[in-house]
Amino acid sequence: MNEPVTVLGLGPMGHAIASAYVAAGHPTTTWNRTATRPTPAGATRLPDATAAVSASGTVVVCLLDYDAARSVLTPLAGTLRGRVVVNVTSGSPDAARSMAAWTSDHEIPYADGAIMTPATTIGTTAATILHSGHPTTALAPLGGTHTYLGADPGRAAAFDVALLDIFWTSVTGVAHAFAMARSENITATELAPLANGIADLLPVVIDDHSARLAKGDHAGTFSNLHSAAAGMAHIIETAEARGIDAGVMRAAHALVRAAVDAGHGTDGVSRLTVELEAARHVS
Amino acid sequence: MNEPVTVLGLGPMGHAIASAYVAAGHPTTTWNRTATRPTPAGATRLPDATAAVSASGTVVVCLLDYDAARSVLTPLAGTLRGRVVVNVTSGSPDAARSMAAWTSDHEIPYADGAIMTPATTIGTTAATILHSGHPTTALAPLGGTHTYLGADPGRAAAFDVALLDIFWTSVTGVAHAFAMARSENITATELAPLANGIADLLPVVIDDHSARLAKGDHAGTFSNLHSAAAGMAHIIETAEARGIDAGVMRAAHALVRAAVDAGHGTDGVSRLTVELEAARHVS
Ligand SMILES: NC(=O)c1ccc[n+]([C@@H]2O[C@H](COP(=O)([O-])OP(=O)(O)OC[C@H]3O[C@@H](n4cnc5c(N)ncnc54)[C@H](OP(=O)(O)O)[C@@H]3O)[C@@H](O)[C@H]2O)c1
Ligand SMILES: NC(=O)c1ccc[n+]([C@@H]2O[C@H](COP(=O)([O-])OP(=O)(O)OC[C@H]3O[C@@H](n4cnc5c(N)ncnc54)[C@H](OP(=O)(O)O)[C@@H]3O)[C@@H](O)[C@H]2O)c1
Repeated sequence: MNEPVTVLGLGPMGHAIASAYVAAGHPTTTWNRTATRPTPAGATRLPDATAAVSASGTVVVCLLDYDAARSVLTPLAGTLRGRVVVNVTSGSPDAARSMAAWTSDHEIPYADGAIMTPATTIGTTAATILHSGHPTTALAPLGGTHTYLGADPGRAAAFDVALLDIFWTSVTGVAHAFAMARSENITATELAPLANGIADLLPVVIDDHSARLAKGDHAGTFSNLHSAAAGMAHIIETAEARGIDAGVMRAAHALVRAAVDAGHGTDGVSRLTVELEAARHVS
Repeated sequence: MNEPVTVLGLGPMGHAIASAYVAAGHPTTTWNRTATRPTPAGATRLPDATAAVSASGTVVVCLLDYDAARSVLTPLAGTLRGRVVVNVTSGSPDAARSMAAWTSDHEIPYADGAIMTPATTIGTTAATILHSGHPTTALAPLGGTHTYLGADPGRAAAFDVALLDIFWTSVTGVAHAFAMARSENITATELAPLANGIADLLPVVIDDHSARLAKGDHAGTFSNLHSAAAGMAHIIETAEARGIDAGVMRAAHALVRAAVDAGHGTDGVSRLTVELEAARHVS
């Protein structure tokens, strides 16, 4: 018989997670702060968090953020003792480590997870899930690819933050590019196929970037920072001539220009990573 | 017998273009401002631009930027009359249109091109080349995919700028993410495979974005702006706690926050395009 699992939080992701446990044959207990969220079919819903947590040896936490997680878990400390807490709430590595310190004080085994794919992927092969801290197989029923990243409870969140950095930066670029195109009477439908051609270049850029960082050799493979700065200046000029905010590209251009000014104009973009690191300061 | 072609500019791209014309059997004449750049094998090199232009009915211009192109072409106006100028120098749509107005004054048929792929792709199936203005088949020997975008000479540059917006914004995100990861002792080699998983999501985002703009329906498919803002705040917090500049993400976050403040928190990211358009002002 499968292990009972309790899921705290029934937002879109918590709902998908609880449904996946039900589908995998786990007795599933759920709780949500407010009654308005729908109950996943086949799961037990309890209005009291202490009762919900008492039902299972594994407690999956899926809430808006770590502040919400802290406010829900703090009054449950005594009940959670000896149960495995798997927290898949998104947050920073430091927030994960501070939560891990609190669970350690209360003798609660603690895994911190990061779900890299949308709620619709949960229970399918498309799900990508990372975890670190306490090693657990409790996330297996969520499907897809699972990666255990080691004992540091902040490590899954550290990957999460770096990967979301790529995602949100790129998505903002996509949103901006469609505005630029439409200001030139290029429809979204006309731009999309060529935009996909650009997206297809990114894996090549990522692999080259990673190889160059590993070797410490930053020669420009495809292009150099000098011509990147010129290209970025055209983008800013065109956007602002159309009255479109270019704040994101202005910030990107400033990084590239600083690297050029520091004498790295003939290097490629992997030099930017090194320059960001060199400029680090403890605030 | 193939038409003679003259190439002005022997930077990496001009060199690749001239080499492709030679390979395709075109009598190829080249010119470059300074003597230091290598001559493509099989091409004739002339030290005088007027003599170089006089050798061919088609003149391909591939220089650093439009200022360079203007300074090279202005003294050649009389010689260029009746020859087709194909300018593949990168620049803004307005620069292309202003160049087209000048060529029109001098009765020079003018095509403005945009090369979307690196110099190494020229002459291979991987090349992607756009042009607009005067319709021409002169770019066919450069290989790959060719798209004619219509009579507006600024249209190829408008696509170019929008596509480079996606490219450079995403690449800056990649460079930043590697710095974030390494500050958490995640090596570039460890991050790269998962970063490629994120890159694989972009075509899905682009197609959804385009479909939603076409319909004017901005419901959040994968995620909403409220949770995007929370995710971005974690990235900024984590970067700055490590002393890493977060200027690009701060600018992206400001756009998302403004859309949330305007009441669009439950919409998806295609709303950002509409909000950028709504905030347009003529400066
Ligand atoms: N949705 C996705 O596709 C996706 C993908 C990857 C990661 N994630 C992550 O998964 C987590 C959950 O996301 P979600 O999409 O399910 O929805 P969400 O909107 O991020 O969070 C909603 C959940 O948080 C609860 N909550 C918020 N503030 C609370 C508080 N102060 N006290 C108690 N509960 C509180 C809500 O309860 P109420 O119903 O009472 O408000 C609800 O259960 C987030 O960290 C998100 O980043 C989501
Ligand atoms: N390389 C690529 O992979 C790539 C990809 C797509 C698009 N492009 C575009 O193609 C164009 C050319 O790029 P590139 O990579 O060949 O090299 P580049 O470094 O952008 O340009 C070098 C060329 O411009 C000339 N030049 C610069 N300033 C000049 C001036 N004031 N007067 C006359 N000539 C001047 C240089 O002549 P000197 O030798 O005398 O300095 C050289 O011929 C650019 O617009 C670039 O954005 C390049």
